[in-house]
Amino acid sequence: MTTTHQLKQPYTVFLGDVSEAGYAKTGFGLAHWRPDVCVAQLRFEGCRVDLGLPDIAVDDLKQQQGSLVIGVASRGGIIADSWIPALVRAAESGLDIVAGTHVRVADIPELQAAARRSGARLIDVRVPPPSIPVGTGERRPGKRLLTVGTDCAVGKKYTALALERAMHERGMDATFRASGQTGIMIAGSGIAIDAVVCDFTSGAAEQLSPAADDNHWDVIEGQGALHHPSYGGVSLGLLHGSQPDAIVLCHDASREGLLGLEQFPLPGLNDAIASNIENGRITNPDIRCVGVSVNTSGIDPARREALLAEYQQETGLPCVDPLIDGVGPIIDFIAEEEQ
Amino acid sequence: MTTTHQLKQPYTVFLGDVSEAGYAKTGFGLAHWRPDVCVAQLRFEGCRVDLGLPDIAVDDLKQQQGSLVIGVASRGGIIADSWIPALVRAAESGLDIVAGTHVRVADIPELQAAARRSGARLIDVRVPPPSIPVGTGERRPGKRLLTVGTDCAVGKKYTALALERAMHERGMDATFRASGQTGIMIAGSGIAIDAVVCDFTSGAAEQLSPAADDNHWDVIEGQGALHHPSYGGVSLGLLHGSQPDAIVLCHDASREGLLGLEQFPLPGLNDAIASNIENGRITNPDIRCVGVSVNTSGIDPARREALLAEYQQETGLPCVDPLIDGVGPIIDFIAEEEQ
Repeated sequence: MTTTHQLKQPYTVFLGDVSEAGYAKTGFGLAHWRPDVCVAQLRFEGCRVDLGLPDIAVDDLKQQQGSLVIGVASRGGIIADSWIPALVRAAESGLDIVAGTHVRVADIPELQAAARRSGARLIDVRVPPPSIPVGTGERRPGKRLLTVGTDCAVGKKYTALALERAMHERGMDATFRASGQTGIMIAGSGIAIDAVVCDFTSGAAEQLSPAADDNHWDVIEGQGALHHPSYGGVSLGLLHGSQPDAIVLCHDASREGLLGLEQFPLPGLNDAIASNIENGRITNPDIRCVGVSVNTSGIDPARREALLAEYQQETGLPCVDPLIDGVGPIIDFIAEEEQ
Repeated sequence: MTTTHQLKQPYTVFLGDVSEAGYAKTGFGLAHWRPDVCVAQLRFEGCRVDLGLPDIAVDDLKQQQGSLVIGVASRGGIIADSWIPALVRAAESGLDIVAGTHVRVADIPELQAAARRSGARLIDVRVPPPSIPVGTGERRPGKRLLTVGTDCAVGKKYTALALERAMHERGMDATFRASGQTGIMIAGSGIAIDAVVCDFTSGAAEQLSPAADDNHWDVIEGQGALHHPSYGGVSLGLLHGSQPDAIVLCHDASREGLLGLEQFPLPGLNDAIASNIENGRITNPDIRCVGVSVNTSGIDPARREALLAEYQQETGLPCVDPLIDGVGPIIDFIAEEEQ
């Protein structure tokens, strides 16, 4: 048994009074990537955001199993007062309450009382589980792929989920491993790596992708970027602990400087690959890059194919926009290498 | 005002009932590096460890100013029950109690009560101060030197302190900046970097060495090693946030594998230097290595000089054992470069 969050499924997704789809990104992610796990949505009267799931009324929560997952973000990451009565009803019904908000559900007295009565759990996925050990660097069986980035917010979670799905479609044995809050909800387990005390970052990554069958792929959600002055340490700890056999570099084609730190230029694709390979060799000497996943939504569509071809030329690797092209060429590349 | 611990000086060093000098390393470090700050030692009857400071009796603590600093480690990092009455008397006298033990002095009810009455503070230097911001990578004035390592426990703190002392002796303006518990006690301020949540590691390093005069040197105590599978992330965050102009590589000449992880070979000196330079360039393009600080205590003394000459040949840099040779050649190298 490893030290990660373990969520109870199925999920009832809480949308509450959310007014714009942009605030329900978590809910949409859950419904998109885990349609089989999401059995209902809980919306207040007047809520027009729709995940396409069956609606459930507060009075009917007692029929549900598993967890009520908060699928919306409020301004400031709070739990709105207007949500509390419904969350209390869910907890009283024995549903675990799962949140990735800044304010912790485990700190709300009404929820604590309800959960105590029913035995439900209050799980804040931003909070790392206790007792994460220091990393050992010890090799473990199974294959691992880590998505890395030229920056933050370039599609590392999306790419990892798309790779897991494509591997499953090809009959490969694969598990998405989540290192961030939304990913943890989707996966039903994981650790918010960036919230771990830095002495334990690589140890947390080791817990995240435990020993597995030789032919099994863990597809690990990356965080930050080695070149990022704010988050490089998070990325290096995750890289060392994941000891990936393969990395996929994620990149936003419209970006010139780092998001929010524009004075820092983005590294070139080959520089970012080389630096991940160089640093990753410490725990896995066989690490190699198997593709580049590019977000092309910010560039002229007419330029898209030429740009991907340029990238392919530059890196010698399959370069795809996962939303448009899928990640098939990356899986092909892995399969060819393994023959 | 930056976010670091700020300790009150002078220090009365608590030794209690310590039986062996090895358990009083912190106390010896304080007396060695800050003889002007350490005004007394508090020893129980029968304690034979001696820092060479004037003894003070528990009854006379009320004459003291500043802090009572726990200069001993017990097995398991606890605060022994037998220490509590003396610590309470110190806190009642208005002395801050400063500890780097695993067990926190701020969690001990008797001390809390005494501190509340007198206004004394209970400071656990292992615990990072609150509200550390995310790193920005923004350049700040002043010069910075960071000690880095081929491994953990290779003399990064000692080297930084020796460099600060040697710079002072040459009339240079320099401040030792502490990133670990003993260093914080010696410096009177600092942040235990390895206890910071990893999203904030580089931000903590930025707080640690704030903007300074153009000719001022911050000499920053390094932590871990980039090549270390357990602690690489700590080292990278500290490197990015310190944005050093200069690094000094610290190395233990007797070591072949990493301490406690012997299956991992130590990086070569030039590899370790290159990797720190490469990664450090992100926040300071002018970063360069100015010397190698070698612990030669574990090798045959007859081999010592030849080995340092080999290292010098290999790196093209001054290579010294700071305990035997001092760090003068490194300061010379910096001075020559700056002419």
